[in-house]
This record gives sequence, structure tokens and C-alpha cells, in this order.
Amino acid sequence: MPGEFDFIRRFLSHFPKARVPVGPGDDCAVLAPQRGALCVTTDAVVEDVHFTRAAFSPADIGHKALAVNLSDLASMGATPRWFVCALALPKGFPLRDLTGLARGMAALAREHRIALVGGNFTSARELSVTITAAGELSRPALTRGGARPGDLLYVSGTLGDARLGLQHLLAGVKRGAAVRRQRRPEPRVALGRLASRFASAALDVSDGLAQDLGHLCTASRVHVTLELERLPVTAAVRSALGAEGALAGGEDYELLMSVPPARSRAFERACARAGQAVTRIGLVSEGSGWVCRDMTGRVLPPPRGFDHFRTPTSN
Amino acid sequence: MPGEFDFIRRFLSHFPKARVPVGPGDDCAVLAPQRGALCVTTDAVVEDVHFTRAAFSPADIGHKALAVNLSDLASMGATPRWFVCALALPKGFPLRDLTGLARGMAALAREHRIALVGGNFTSARELSVTITAAGELSRPALTRGGARPGDLLYVSGTLGDARLGLQHLLAGVKRGAAVRRQRRPEPRVALGRLASRFASAALDVSDGLAQDLGHLCTASRVHVTLELERLPVTAAVRSALGAEGALAGGEDYELLMSVPPARSRAFERACARAGQAVTRIGLVSEGSGWVCRDMTGRVLPPPRGFDHFRTPTSN
Repeated sequence: MPGEFDFIRRFLSHFPKARVPVGPGDDCAVLAPQRGALCVTTDAVVEDVHFTRAAFSPADIGHKALAVNLSDLASMGATPRWFVCALALPKGFPLRDLTGLARGMAALAREHRIALVGGNFTSARELSVTITAAGELSRPALTRGGARPGDLLYVSGTLGDARLGLQHLLAGVKRGAAVRRQRRPEPRVALGRLASRFASAALDVSDGLAQDLGHLCTASRVHVTLELERLPVTAAVRSALGAEGALAGGEDYELLMSVPPARSRAFERACARAGQAVTRIGLVSEGSGWVCRDMTGRVLPPPRGFDHFRTPTSN
Repeated sequence: MPGEFDFIRRFLSHFPKARVPVGPGDDCAVLAPQRGALCVTTDAVVEDVHFTRAAFSPADIGHKALAVNLSDLASMGATPRWFVCALALPKGFPLRDLTGLARGMAALAREHRIALVGGNFTSARELSVTITAAGELSRPALTRGGARPGDLLYVSGTLGDARLGLQHLLAGVKRGAAVRRQRRPEPRVALGRLASRFASAALDVSDGLAQDLGHLCTASRVHVTLELERLPVTAAVRSALGAEGALAGGEDYELLMSVPPARSRAFERACARAGQAVTRIGLVSEGSGWVCRDMTGRVLPPPRGFDHFRTPTSN
């Protein structure tokens, strides 16, 4: 069976090219309604694919469904404004669970001041939540295609925690920081807005750094050398998964950003002032694809990323 | 188990009121990005709820998923512009079916000049297609809340065909005009734009005229008297379902419009010039709720509408 990206490519091939500033293939579509531009993204979470009802509370599910969309808006540098929510509910879905789901979603919506402006309910065999979110841009959108040779590569926060959290949940461990990262990802909205003043490209790390870095290299037509020992991983992740495991892990919802060298010090200072944790993890150069170097300078083979269609997992 | 509208009300109660020209509760949300306004709607079609793969071709499914959204835009008087599509595909979904689905959707998109600007794929147990569509408004949106006492009530096309088509499909009959109405609803986009010059209110008839008329009465705080013998039904529908059956039938995707009496003749002439079939079916007055009168003037009890959550059906 072909992979997710092959599906997307084939599906898109049947449609005329959208005449919009940024169409399919990036984290968001950018529309230009009149003046200024609108960022729109859509993302779904599905029972037994992205969550289980045993391991996630209804509030976790509501939070996560919105968070993954906000993360896409963040990666473009957009300010979240409006969203619509399509819910598919199994017959007999308890009202108290709907309440929990709404509360989890509404809390995150309030935090980011994004307004629910519509939605749809339908019955279905499994629970799923499909959200379409729109944000406004005050600067040109941060796409995946803007990285240039010489740029420095940064990532926010820490990597691999959500993957470790999934392992914990599968093993029946239901508490702890890693489990929280899996259940309640925090979209880097403020950082995305800040980065739009400095960065040449950005995307959110949702499918694992390995795979998302590949997207950056392809879209920007550049090569990246990653320094493995610089990857920001917690001690728990390092001991459980190793740095390579963090590379392959999915659902981090951190931002990966390339910054021109002339702006890198100002970017780092601005992040420090704003309390945004970012780490320089590599260098952009001419070429294609990416490699990973360890402390000794040895080049390592890149691990496979995360792909729902290639890797049947309970995540 | 509570009905769909109770679910929506409860879900919405957890969110702050959206500060947009029209928020949840109408066919579309209206956003005001900068100048001019944007209409946004989201709607899903789910396997074994809105279609079966035995009775619908992949192209039918793709068509219908977009059509139900375009119908919402039509009912506001909006011009379709952009849409995003979230697909949930069962494992092993054949590529040729994805191609068929895309082709059916793309053909309708071309017809209405609406651009696919993004999307999402995920795996799931059952096939579903969730679309969010946006359109532009050149006049104030036609909401459900604008009908006033004295207005005349119109409906487009004919009613009950899609319901009859569903009966045919369940009986193994796979051809004919009624089956086509079930599989390939035609959103009344051009009529919606025309109506925005004359009508005081509009909505699309997706849940059966009985139920959608109730929405109009509630939102506009008016009473409606429907003349049963004026309902536009084909001979096939009249003999199979009767006019009452057409009232309760779902998925017509026709437009229900109220027009002030001073503008009704101009509206009828404009429709005739544009080749848009509309029929005057009733009168708006003060009060609440609606009644149906037969030829003798006798008031009939209103049949129940169509509600996914109250009526488990294969439709």
C-alpha cells in the first residue's frame, strides 16, 4: 500500500492548482480574501489511531484535536482566530464525555483566543474530531520552502517525549511528564509569531523530526547536517529511546525553524527574552536530503519517520 | 439519547460566544477578515451513515461530500472560493477508489470554481470525508433569522426525490432520477446568489422540509402556514411517498427562502429569466412554529423531520 504522501500527491493531481499564496503541501493554506492574508488548516484525530478512549480522557481528546491544528497555524507564524469542528460520535456516546471533550477544547481555545465559529455532528462507528482552523498573518507566512544554504537550524522545546508517553500509556503507566506531552501537546503559537520576524522557514514536528526535516529539505531544496548531540532530549527520553529514538518519534508539536546567520543572534536573544526554549541543532547547506553527525563527526544513517499509512500503530 | 441539536447546544455552551457576523447555528459562519466577508462551513459524509460503498461509487461519494458543503454556502448567498478536505480511509482502501473519489469531487469543484486549498489524510475503520468550505459574500449573508410576517415562502426544485432514491437503493434499484438525486445532489449555488438580492432569509433543506422549516420559524421567531398541495413533488414521489413523505424526506439540498411581498414578483421574474425553478409554498405570519394546510383548508399535524441521532437509518 502506498504511503500517506503518495496518497496526497495522487489525490491532488485531480484538482486544478489552487490560485492562493500557499496551497496544499505546506502546514496551512494561505488565502488572500481582500487585504491581509488568512491561514487555514485542517486536521483530524481518530479513535484508535491518534488516541484510545481508555488512555485519553474526553478533555484530552478535545485538547489534542485543537492543539494539532494550532500547531499548524503556529508553524506559519499566524495568529489563531477562528475554527470549525466536525465531530463524529459513536451511537450512545455519553453526554458527560461530550462535555469533557468540549471543556478540554474550550480551555485551549480560550488560552489562544481562537473562536469556534461552526461545526457539524454526525454519527459514526468510532469517535473522531476534525477541526479546520484559520489564523491571520501580519507578515508573510513561514513556509517550508524558505531555508537557504548557510541558515542555522533550530528546534523548540524537547523531542521524543510524546513518543515515550505513548510507550508509557501502552504499558499502562498513566501519569508523568511524557504522558502529558502525548495527551496534551502545547502548540508553539507565541514562538511561531516571534519566529516570523527572524526565520526563513518553519514547520511543526508532528511526524517525527526525521520525517519533517525531510520535508524541509525537499521543499527548500537544501541539505541539512544535524548534530545528534545537540538534539534537546530529556534525561528520561535519552535513557528510554536514545537520541535516535527522539529523531523518529512523532507528535512532538515543536517548531523546526531555519534562521539566516545574520539574524540568528537576534533570534536567540528574542527567544530568551520571551522565555521560549529553542536549541540550535544543525546547519543548512547546498544539496539535498539530510544527514546526522554524532560527537565524533561520524555520519549516521537516518532513522525512518512516522507515517500512519506505513506504520500501523495504536498512536 | 438526546438529539443532534441538543448535542450542539450543549457543546457550544462551553465556548465563549464567537465575535463574528454569524457564528454557530446557521448554515455557515461568516467571518470578517478585513474588508468584505468570508462564509465558512464544515460538513462530513460517513460510510454507512450517509452512504454505503455498495450503493455509491467513489465518484458519488466525492461529489456528495463537496455538494453538501456547497449547499450551505448557497443558502447564505455566498460565492464558493476555497475548501479543505479531511479524508479518513480504512486500511487497504484501493487507490482506484481514491482516484474515483477525487474525480467526482474535482468535477463538482470545477463546475463551481471552488479551489481545494488543503487537506488531511488519516486512517480509520470507516471511510469518511469532512470538508470545510469558504465563500465570499458581496451582500449581507442570507441567514435563517430574517423572515418577517407577510413574507412569502419559496422552495427550489422538487422535494422528496432523494428520500425516494434512498428507498430505491435499499431495494436494490440502482438507476433512475431519484437515485441520482440521492447520489449526486446539485447545490443551488447560482440560485443562492440570486436570492441574496431579494430574500429576507434562506436555508438549505438538508434534514427534510419539516425540520428545516422549524429552524426557520425558530430563528426568525415567526409562524409559517404551508400549503400542502403547492409542494413541488414529482409524480414518482407523490405516488411512492405522498406529499407528507416529501415533507419529511431528507437530503433534498434545495433552498427554502422567504421573500418580502414587495419583492416577490421581481424575484419570480429573475428566477424565470435565470432558469431557476422555484415554487411559492406558504406564508409567514406572526407567532411560532408552522402548520400545514391541505386543499380543503384542514390543518394537518406536521410529520417528524430527519435526525441522524434520533433515527438510526442507513441514510
